[in-house]
Amino acid sequence: MTTDASPRPDLSGVRIGFIGLGVMGAPMAAHLLEAGAVLTVHTRTPQRAQPLLDAGARWAPSPADAARDAAFVVTIVGFPEDVEAVYFGRRGTAAAPTGGAGIFSTAAPGAVLIDMTTSRPALAREIHAAAAARSIAALDAPVSGGDVGARAATLSIMVGGDADAFERARPILAVMGRLVVRQGAAGSGQLTKLCNQIAIAGTMFGALEALLFARRTGLDPTTVLTSIGAGAAASWTLLNLYPRAERGDFAPGFAARHFLKDLRIALDEASDAALDLPGLALAERLYGRMVEDEGRGDFGTHGLLLTLMGS
Amino acid sequence: MTTDASPRPDLSGVRIGFIGLGVMGAPMAAHLLEAGAVLTVHTRTPQRAQPLLDAGARWAPSPADAARDAAFVVTIVGFPEDVEAVYFGRRGTAAAPTGGAGIFSTAAPGAVLIDMTTSRPALAREIHAAAAARSIAALDAPVSGGDVGARAATLSIMVGGDADAFERARPILAVMGRLVVRQGAAGSGQLTKLCNQIAIAGTMFGALEALLFARRTGLDPTTVLTSIGAGAAASWTLLNLYPRAERGDFAPGFAARHFLKDLRIALDEASDAALDLPGLALAERLYGRMVEDEGRGDFGTHGLLLTLMGS
Repeated sequence: MTTDASPRPDLSGVRIGFIGLGVMGAPMAAHLLEAGAVLTVHTRTPQRAQPLLDAGARWAPSPADAARDAAFVVTIVGFPEDVEAVYFGRRGTAAAPTGGAGIFSTAAPGAVLIDMTTSRPALAREIHAAAAARSIAALDAPVSGGDVGARAATLSIMVGGDADAFERARPILAVMGRLVVRQGAAGSGQLTKLCNQIAIAGTMFGALEALLFARRTGLDPTTVLTSIGAGAAASWTLLNLYPRAERGDFAPGFAARHFLKDLRIALDEASDAALDLPGLALAERLYGRMVEDEGRGDFGTHGLLLTLMGS
Repeated sequence: MTTDASPRPDLSGVRIGFIGLGVMGAPMAAHLLEAGAVLTVHTRTPQRAQPLLDAGARWAPSPADAARDAAFVVTIVGFPEDVEAVYFGRRGTAAAPTGGAGIFSTAAPGAVLIDMTTSRPALAREIHAAAAARSIAALDAPVSGGDVGARAATLSIMVGGDADAFERARPILAVMGRLVVRQGAAGSGQLTKLCNQIAIAGTMFGALEALLFARRTGLDPTTVLTSIGAGAAASWTLLNLYPRAERGDFAPGFAARHFLKDLRIALDEASDAALDLPGLALAERLYGRMVEDEGRGDFGTHGLLLTLMGS
């Protein structure tokens, strides 16, 4: 575990390939560059890389190029399919007919691959096995803390994989997050992130249904929060998202379509474990309605209020 | 709002009737006595009153006797039926064939009646109206914070009723709680408490399903909590009840059968407001199973873990 009190590790001269410069990846990559890393970046939309290139990063035209000669490769992309493409190579599609070579086509023995996407535990284990066959280490290391945590380097990073690879990667991770914990073998980081999302799903119901109930029974939701925000009902969601939902501010935060993806992965894993989680199942149903029927996938997760209102 | 920094009000010579000396009521009454009130107490099980009588309180053989000559009457009993009996008089039953005279048979014009039971908003409004017809004030003032908060006088007290009655009662309430907020007209305190319970219900799912998921997928639930306890998934329930559930300690805290009562009142109110709250409805169904089918009404609310496990 690393806290703010620790000095930031010095990454001078450490060669890192970084793939995926979205709202999370871009500030995370910037922290690595500031810590002295020799950074090579790739992302699907090249212009997103420009600020990093201006700050000294080098451009790689493919994931394979980003991984070549890197001691560490960090990936943080959108969906499990993207993770698969980035590691194993992209099949040609109508939009991108040439496809693209994956990390495994160039990564050198001894490298450490760190996937920080929230993705399938089974895919993390598959990557770990494919890496091991090439004498490469692989960690699954999804994060929580959102874009705010990515910019402030205060992320919680949940890590699965071998203990020695974790120790080697720790300075890299400590530059990007505040709470870096190894949870167990390959896939454990992903499973822990799913626990996080399951806990959030229930809390979200609680907070948004309390808000709706307050409104519809004639209470002042803001005064209600004064009474209920500090005791047994307290949650991060209640304190942070209830007020935004109350004033009709549904900007993400965390986009509902990504949350739905996570809930579906969690449900699949629960089902594989013969585990019936009725709260999670309800959340998946309602977020499915919000994202797929109501077209609100780019709203923040607290936009579920509108679905609960039946509007 | 009153905080710890404020001096405790001096209630010397204030005549208070106090009805209901359960795990909540007993320490709350003790605080009033310590603040100097002239306290007359009644409770269903007389031996529970002995420590207060030893400390200077007087015994009243009925609610009516407790209310006679009192400037304030505080009630905190179990269920709405008990509230009804205490205020309007108890019908004779096989167990207590003589019944008992209620508060309204003796309370003097100018008195302030404060019901701190979690009860039905409609009953709070009925008591308010019956009181007004007798030139008596009535407040509904349910609490959150549990027995710990009752003992430490750190309760959150959610108050409904007229503003002037609230101001008169404020010193009494400030002796028993830390956060005393008027939410609106009669019934608003009860409605706010229901918001609190709705928020807790969702959060409970989240925390317990995350715990089950962690267990069944082979993670260490304690290490998982390290990673997820400080960010967007954080909640009072996750930090306090997840660890107790993990070690199999299902002592209440807050008894499931009381929580089920609250959820049913909330569902009825939601239904009256034409409001569909699927998380609340699911919670009522599962707590119903836990309390009525599985006989675990005296377990803490986090005993729902056993229901979710299907055991």
